[in-house]
Parts: sequence; C-alpha cells; structure tokens
Amino acid sequence: MYGNGNFNNMLNAYCITIGDELLQGFTIDTNSAWIAQTLIPCNIELKQKITIGDNIEDIKSSIESAISRQYDYIFVTGGLGPTHDDITKEAVKQIFDTEYVLDKDYLNDLEKKFHKRGLKMPANNKSQAMILDKADSIPNQNGTALGMRFVNGKSQLFVMPGVPREMKTMVEKEIIPKYINCENVNNITTIKTTGVFESKLAEILNEDIRDLKDTCSFAFLPHYTGVSIRLKKCENYNGRLDTIVNSVFSKLSPFAYGINEDTLSEVVSKKLIQQKMTIATAESCTGGLIAKMFTDIPGSSSFFLGGVVSYSNELKQSMVNVSEELIESHGAVSEQVAIAMAMGIRENTGANIGIGTTGISGPSGGTAEKPIGLVYISVVTPTQEIVKKFNMIPSRKEHREMTANTAINMVRKIIHE
Amino acid sequence: MYGNGNFNNMLNAYCITIGDELLQGFTIDTNSAWIAQTLIPCNIELKQKITIGDNIEDIKSSIESAISRQYDYIFVTGGLGPTHDDITKEAVKQIFDTEYVLDKDYLNDLEKKFHKRGLKMPANNKSQAMILDKADSIPNQNGTALGMRFVNGKSQLFVMPGVPREMKTMVEKEIIPKYINCENVNNITTIKTTGVFESKLAEILNEDIRDLKDTCSFAFLPHYTGVSIRLKKCENYNGRLDTIVNSVFSKLSPFAYGINEDTLSEVVSKKLIQQKMTIATAESCTGGLIAKMFTDIPGSSSFFLGGVVSYSNELKQSMVNVSEELIESHGAVSEQVAIAMAMGIRENTGANIGIGTTGISGPSGGTAEKPIGLVYISVVTPTQEIVKKFNMIPSRKEHREMTANTAINMVRKIIHE
Repeated sequence: MYGNGNFNNMLNAYCITIGDELLQGFTIDTNSAWIAQTLIPCNIELKQKITIGDNIEDIKSSIESAISRQYDYIFVTGGLGPTHDDITKEAVKQIFDTEYVLDKDYLNDLEKKFHKRGLKMPANNKSQAMILDKADSIPNQNGTALGMRFVNGKSQLFVMPGVPREMKTMVEKEIIPKYINCENVNNITTIKTTGVFESKLAEILNEDIRDLKDTCSFAFLPHYTGVSIRLKKCENYNGRLDTIVNSVFSKLSPFAYGINEDTLSEVVSKKLIQQKMTIATAESCTGGLIAKMFTDIPGSSSFFLGGVVSYSNELKQSMVNVSEELIESHGAVSEQVAIAMAMGIRENTGANIGIGTTGISGPSGGTAEKPIGLVYISVVTPTQEIVKKFNMIPSRKEHREMTANTAINMVRKIIHE
Repeated sequence: MYGNGNFNNMLNAYCITIGDELLQGFTIDTNSAWIAQTLIPCNIELKQKITIGDNIEDIKSSIESAISRQYDYIFVTGGLGPTHDDITKEAVKQIFDTEYVLDKDYLNDLEKKFHKRGLKMPANNKSQAMILDKADSIPNQNGTALGMRFVNGKSQLFVMPGVPREMKTMVEKEIIPKYINCENVNNITTIKTTGVFESKLAEILNEDIRDLKDTCSFAFLPHYTGVSIRLKKCENYNGRLDTIVNSVFSKLSPFAYGINEDTLSEVVSKKLIQQKMTIATAESCTGGLIAKMFTDIPGSSSFFLGGVVSYSNELKQSMVNVSEELIESHGAVSEQVAIAMAMGIRENTGANIGIGTTGISGPSGGTAEKPIGLVYISVVTPTQEIVKKFNMIPSRKEHREMTANTAINMVRKIIHE
C-alpha cells in the first residue's frame, strides 16, 4: 500500500450506500468501488464510504453529517424504488425542507413505458413521478427511479438508485457530463504482469522506484494469477504519467501483458485474431475453464475452434488420441500425456495451436510422488512443442485458475515471439 | 427489501474496514459482508459499516466514534501488516493509551516460521511481535499479524488483518468460540429457486405471506439465474424458523433447489453421485462453462466424464457425430442439432446423461429469424430426450450463465423424478 498524499487540487467525495441487503451481507456493495474508480480520472478522491440500512433516521443523519463535513461531492445510492422500504427520497425531503411536486411529464413517460410492454403501471410506481421541489431530476435510462441533485454551498449531493446498471449509466451519461468538470487526468495506472514473482519485479524496478520518487509512487499488488503494479502520480509532479508507464511497461517485458482493465485472455485473443491464428484446448484438471475464458470474449469463434474436457482416461484416449500405453507408463498426470493431449486436439481440430492441461487440483487424488497442486501444461504449435511442470497452490479453485492463466500466458509468450 | 425490526435481544455490531485499496475501488470489500453473514446466527446485527483510508487520524476518529456509540461489537479489519502504511496498531495504542510490549514467545514463533521456509525474517516483521499492553492477542493461523481484542464497558473491539483468509479463520476459530456467546440461532434463511418467475412464486406463497405475517417476513430477491426467497423471523416470534422453511420449501417444489449457500451445480452433483449416474457435455454457446461448473465441484470426476466444446460446425460433426445434413437443413442453432449434440456426447463418452447447448450469445451473429439470445438446450438420458427453446437475455455473459444454469436445472428435474 502507498501513502495518502492528495494530488494537486484534488477534490474529495463521500459515498453513502443504503440497503439492509448490503448491511446483512447478502449483497456485496460494488457500487462504491465503481464510483471511486470512475472518479479518479476526474481528479476526485473518495475519502470515506459508509453503508447503512433502510432506516430513515440513519439515512438522514448520515447525509447531514456528510453535508456538514463539506465534501465536494456526496454520492448516495439505494432506497429509491417504489416499495415501502425505499425511503431515501423522504429522508432528503426532510433534510432540505422541501416539497413533493408531481412531474406530470414524467408520469406520462412512465405510463407509456409500462404500456409499451403491455402492462398497466402499478399504483406504487406513481410515487416515482413525485419529485422534490429543490432537487434537479437526473434521468434514468435503465429504470423508473429518477436521480436527484442538490446543491449545498460548495457541495453537490447526488442521490441515485442502487441497481448498478441504473446508477452507472446515470453517473456516466448525466452526472459527469453535466455536473462534474472531469478533465480525464491520468493520475493512476495499473500495469498487469503474470508469470513472475513480486520480488523479481521489485528487483527490475529498484532503480526506477528510487529515481522516480518525486514523480510517482509504485505499489505492488500480488494476486495468485499475477502481480499488478500501480503507479500513482505524486502531488507535486505536473508532468504526464503516460510516458513513465510506457517506459516501465517495456522494462517489465515479457511479464507485462496489459494496462488497467485488460485481462490476459483478451490480450491473447486480440493477438490471435491479428495473426489469424486458431486455437483449441484439451483440458483435464482445468475442466473447461480455459475454453470458458476464451469463449467469454465476444467474437471468439474467429480464433477458438473448440475443445475437449477429457476428464477420464478413456476420453483422453478416444477424444484426443492419447495412447493407453502412454497413460499406463507415465500416468495421466505427466509431461508426456500433457503433450499428447495438446497434439491430439490440434490434430483433431486443425487448429494452429493446441493446449493440454493435466494435473491434480485436489482436494483429493494426490500421492507422495504426485502431490495435489502438481500440473503439466503443454502448448503445441506448428513449430514448437512446449511442456512445463508447475506446483500450484493446492487449493482446487486457485489451482484451476492459476493453471488456466499460466496456459494462456504460455500462448501469449509464443505468439509474441 | 423488508423492514428493520430487531430480533429479541439482538446485539449490534459495527464494522470498520481500512485500506486505500478499498477506498479507491481497486479492491472490493468482501470482509464486511462475510462478517455480517457470520454474525447473523449469533443473533448479532451489523448496524453500519464504514470504509476509511490508511490514515491514522481517520482510523482513530472512526474507532472512537464507534466506541462512543456503545456498539456491542466493533470489528476492525486492515492495516496490521509490517509496512509503513499499516498503522492500525498505532491508532488503537493511542486510543487506549497503552504501551508496546515485546512478545518474545511470538517473536520466536515468527522467526521459526520464516526459518522453516528457509528464509531469514525481514526486520519489518519484528514489529508484529510488539503487542499492546491492554489488548488480548488473537492468534493468526494463516499469517503473521496477530489480532487484538479490547474491552470498553459493554463493548468489545476486535482488530484483525484485512487478508480475508486470515480474518475469517480468526473470527471462526478464535473470536466466536472465545468471546461471543453464539447460540447458532436461525433467524434468516434463504430458499433458492430457479426456472420460475418472481410473480409466480409470489402467487404460490400469497396466503403464507399473509398468514405468517407475525411469524416471519418474506423477501423476494430476483437474479437472472433464479429467485431467492429470504425468510426473516419476526422480533416477537419465539418459535423456530426451520419448520416454516421446510413447509415453504415443499410448496415451492419443483422450483426450490437449495438453502442459503447451496449452488445448483452442487445440489445436482450430489444427486448424481447418490444415484451413481454419470454425465457429459457438448457445448456450443456456453463454451465450456457447464463443464467448468461441474468440475468446480471437488470429486466431480466420479460423475463428470468429460465434454466437448464444439464451437465450430466441423467439430460438431467430428466430435459429437452431428451430421452435415442436419446442420445444413436446420442450422447449427436448432432443436435438432441440440439433441444430436447431447446424443453424440452420450454415445462417445458412455455417460448416462448427455447435455447439448447451441445458441447465439452475441453480441453479433443474430438474424431476424434467429435473434441474439436464442438458445436450444437438450438433455438426453437412457429413457428421455428433452429439448427446450429459450430466448435468454441478449447479453453475452448473462446469456451464457442463464443457459448453463437452465441446462443444469433440466438435469436436476430429470433426476429428481
């Protein structure tokens, strides 16, 4: 983790998420994290966030307390639906001592919306056309609850529905363009790496971290499928972060594969499409996860031909041509079988690249010689046959994800060359 | 959503999560939701939760404010690591006006831990053996940072590391057994259903909701793969919730498949194992997702033989014996091809049950006749050939998840019969 230094002229924000669901842990709050991330390029820093239940006194006191602390922006989500528990509007009505007014145009719009779907508008929904006199209404492209904007001194308060899709569109299409002077500054960039230890990355960047200490800070964020490196511009530095990011990215080659939201499978898929290459998978321990990760990508049919989940030995023989003798002499979890699987799926599909995985994800099935965590991954291309042995974390979920990630990364390195 | 009524003698809790990562939205806070859920059976209700950055003044004022509000339990996570940003211990030291003491035994333990891994303990870690005079130390089975417990009047304050695995074990193995009188009451139960609209469920339960209004409340929580129904015991009702849950569950048959944490694939897997049945998958649009969901389950090799991701038409022919004529006359996305895929994978693997999916997940590939969202799902058993047509949400991720879920649910219904 790194320090708390503000950027130049950085504005601050506070977020209040409302809902018994969030508080009881049945729903994980992802809204506040999304808001925080979305505000970063606008030079706005989320200072605190609080979650409260569907209780009018709590809602009032939280909003009043945020207003008294004069945050530049206060974001409130949740409690704007048409049911009796949706009391956020009543809370802000009382805080701002304002009145309900019927927005006839919006009522018409609402009735039309329901009519279009062949439905009569439920009486409950009429309350959503009652707007507050002192608020600006914020249109909701994906739902029926309008958002609200109040101004109090230098603070702006935005009240939005809790449904993520409705809230996100409201922020992106209405609030940021109309009410926030967003300069789209790049203060924070994350470089994503995989296939390397944190300590090795630290070694590579040792001098940069020292030399750039007045320019940006470096944070290392290890995850079991890779290490992200977050660069954060220092408050007194007025240059651009992009140049530094590019230079660090090159130094981290071949480990760095992407920036910010990039995923490894997306990056590899783009490369495969560019190079007009096709791929197919023969999976044992990963059980379809690699195929799933490729087919998550829109347009994957242009490079992903298909795959086999040959969980049993019989299927390894019948579907990817692994000989019974090979399995008997080396075991299903072996270098030889991994290669044979990758070769077999390549042959059977005509793909340029074949992937084979065989390992022991656990929680049972390990032996002293072949412990839980052991995995062999093979990638076969027209010119290369590669197989690697790993001892991944012996926990089923992590083992499978690490194996899938490593396999895709092996493909990345090959097509990069 | 439902009301805010407290249960009889319910105790309250407050949660403070600390970390710039959480505040900037790079990490989603799941700790507080887990804590909330874990406390429910102990009759403890989380009243509010707040997230703050790695800033000592914020940490101090948040904890002091929580103490002044006399919550029964205050849970603090994060900021106990060995780096300069981990300042939670210093904050509580100042709040409770206490002193650092070296815990020599723990320092020895730490050094041994590192030694075991062939490492010398970094100097930084020594700080983790400095404990606070007025705190009870809480052992950490999965890491190096000790937890702390303070008592203040009727309040107990627990300070824990932010790493979920470390925090969870601390709560389960140390805090609940030693410091919380957890009766394991059942105040809230979630019944999970799938393959049915919320309105239909409401119709089925109409009378129960009315008759049981002083016993428990009902909340309907729709998700695109199913509707959960949460039953919450009323504050003045002293009977058991279990009996009601069982009765409601039977009424919701065949839609109800599980309780609380149960997942559909787990429930179906257990049934398959019990009935000694085997299954195999031929997936087009789901691209390995169904195979992945089955093989997520430990022990899946006893019922899941394997599968094919036959994304291309050629592979539908070569791997699951779908004839070229069938594809030409009906199209790859058709009832006939879905059945042929399910039959083909059954034949090729010898499984009792074969699943076939073919559809258009989008974002491209739709036509007026076969729009994005269209999918055919087939399940073939020794005695039945079933195929169903659906128009799922035309969004790739949801389409794939809904299709996989529906396929597994079709299997559930068949083996249930």
